[in-house]
Amino acid sequence: MQELNQAISDALHTLNYEREPIGLYAPIAYTLESGGKRVRPLLALIATQMCGGSLDSAMPAALALEVFHNFTLLHDDLMDNADTRRGKPTVHKKWNCNTAILSGDQMLIESYKIIQQVPEQYLAQCLTLFSKMATEICEGQQYDIDYETRSDISTDEYINMIRLKTAVLPATALQLGALIAGANIDIQHILYEIGVNLGLAFQLRDDYLDVYGNPETFGKKTGGDILDNKKTFVYIAARLHADKEQNDMLDRAFALAEPAQKISEVTQLYTLIGADTACLQLIDHYHQLALQQLQDLPLPEAKKQPLNDILQQLLKREK
Amino acid sequence: MQELNQAISDALHTLNYEREPIGLYAPIAYTLESGGKRVRPLLALIATQMCGGSLDSAMPAALALEVFHNFTLLHDDLMDNADTRRGKPTVHKKWNCNTAILSGDQMLIESYKIIQQVPEQYLAQCLTLFSKMATEICEGQQYDIDYETRSDISTDEYINMIRLKTAVLPATALQLGALIAGANIDIQHILYEIGVNLGLAFQLRDDYLDVYGNPETFGKKTGGDILDNKKTFVYIAARLHADKEQNDMLDRAFALAEPAQKISEVTQLYTLIGADTACLQLIDHYHQLALQQLQDLPLPEAKKQPLNDILQQLLKREK
Repeated sequence: MQELNQAISDALHTLNYEREPIGLYAPIAYTLESGGKRVRPLLALIATQMCGGSLDSAMPAALALEVFHNFTLLHDDLMDNADTRRGKPTVHKKWNCNTAILSGDQMLIESYKIIQQVPEQYLAQCLTLFSKMATEICEGQQYDIDYETRSDISTDEYINMIRLKTAVLPATALQLGALIAGANIDIQHILYEIGVNLGLAFQLRDDYLDVYGNPETFGKKTGGDILDNKKTFVYIAARLHADKEQNDMLDRAFALAEPAQKISEVTQLYTLIGADTACLQLIDHYHQLALQQLQDLPLPEAKKQPLNDILQQLLKREK
Repeated sequence: MQELNQAISDALHTLNYEREPIGLYAPIAYTLESGGKRVRPLLALIATQMCGGSLDSAMPAALALEVFHNFTLLHDDLMDNADTRRGKPTVHKKWNCNTAILSGDQMLIESYKIIQQVPEQYLAQCLTLFSKMATEICEGQQYDIDYETRSDISTDEYINMIRLKTAVLPATALQLGALIAGANIDIQHILYEIGVNLGLAFQLRDDYLDVYGNPETFGKKTGGDILDNKKTFVYIAARLHADKEQNDMLDRAFALAEPAQKISEVTQLYTLIGADTACLQLIDHYHQLALQQLQDLPLPEAKKQPLNDILQQLLKREK
């Protein structure tokens, strides 16, 4: 795993965005240098190795996914007017909104320029998968925006939204890695589904940790989603399981002006209603699905170990 | 020509953006339906026909260029905070800024999805040309922003900026059309250069018409660039040819608060200094270059007629 992380890090350095005009490229370099877990390229490379492919041939797909992911963060932060990302000022705060728009556009173009470098025999298929994913992520972001002003989001709608916004990226990472290794379409599809389930569990864990995380290990304050009135799965589960009286209590708790009190009261109600348990159960459901699919994958057990490891690691995470 | 315009119009209709989530796709449909001259797809199809290719095989490239062009207008209008485009409210005015960001992103992705449909044997080359063009247009936009706060833009810098921002699009349209018709690289390169010169002449004519256009044929009020203190070629030529006294007079004229007076005085100074003539001469220079290159193109004369016609038409335009 360390070898793969090193290969990703080295490859990212070769991109070199110290170019003119610096107003366009410096924000791209800044965004890509600011770290992150590099999970998506790692998944692409793990899938390639698993299916007997070479890292070199899968690297363009891996890097394109990382650049694309960072492009979405850049534009999402602008749309959310977020102040910081990974402990640093966001691009529109450090520069300005127009810079965030234009440099983000260029990052999206860069992601296509990078994926164009996959072996030509896989180019058409890689592009089809990549563009499908890109479209779904925009659609997911749009549903997320639409749901802000709706109070009746169902579990199915929510799961579909996070599937589009979050889960298709790890899913496509795994499928692209397999495709470029020459794996057959069945294996590609199973890996895609593992990625979807991993992505769903990952996002649900994010929702859970934002309320119930240990601030010391979580790395940021809990309760942010509650203060923002965000319709996370914990919120949706609470509304779904609450009786009339509990729903009224939730309304009153969300209307509280004092932040600490609002977080404390909403959290207590979530727990009283059992939203924490509902969330943990759904995380476990998708986690088990992913593990089962990995077990069913017609490949030697030893080959599956790295993906098994990363599934465990990502889904037990406390931050 | 009418046949080609009809083919483009029919093909644009097949794109059909009446999809969910409508918050994402309705602004795309709105932007593409709002018209425009469809010059770029027309150039791609003309080049294809000229080189003996079929319209069908070049249509994905033609449409991708049109969708990409409209994406740049959408995001540029947002960055400029423009109120209207083609007589209708801009997307960020009709909807909001976040919609303009996200629907614009999706339009950029759509342009890649469309160009992916070119015949597979040309896919890699088409993508390379398309992404190079896309990058250069972002770079041109960045230089345009950078130059707003600089007072010493040289003619070379200005021409390079409009080459990137405006001219590489018709150039790439012509080259893609030729490539997909199987034309050799020399013919592709000559057509690319014709497109660059056409694009430069076109943009310079835009600069000229904004000052000297006949409001009745131009279709909008003249003097907009003067009011915005935009550094067009007319401005740069005036500054370059002005003596000390004329430069001081320009400073005073640009500082005038009353719009009609400001336009009138700046225009008079431009004419006094000879900036109008300098601009017309440079338009003619690039126009003649394009015509000469077309003449030198090793293809039968009859085949060249449609491109010749459109060169004349675009560069004699009064609007």
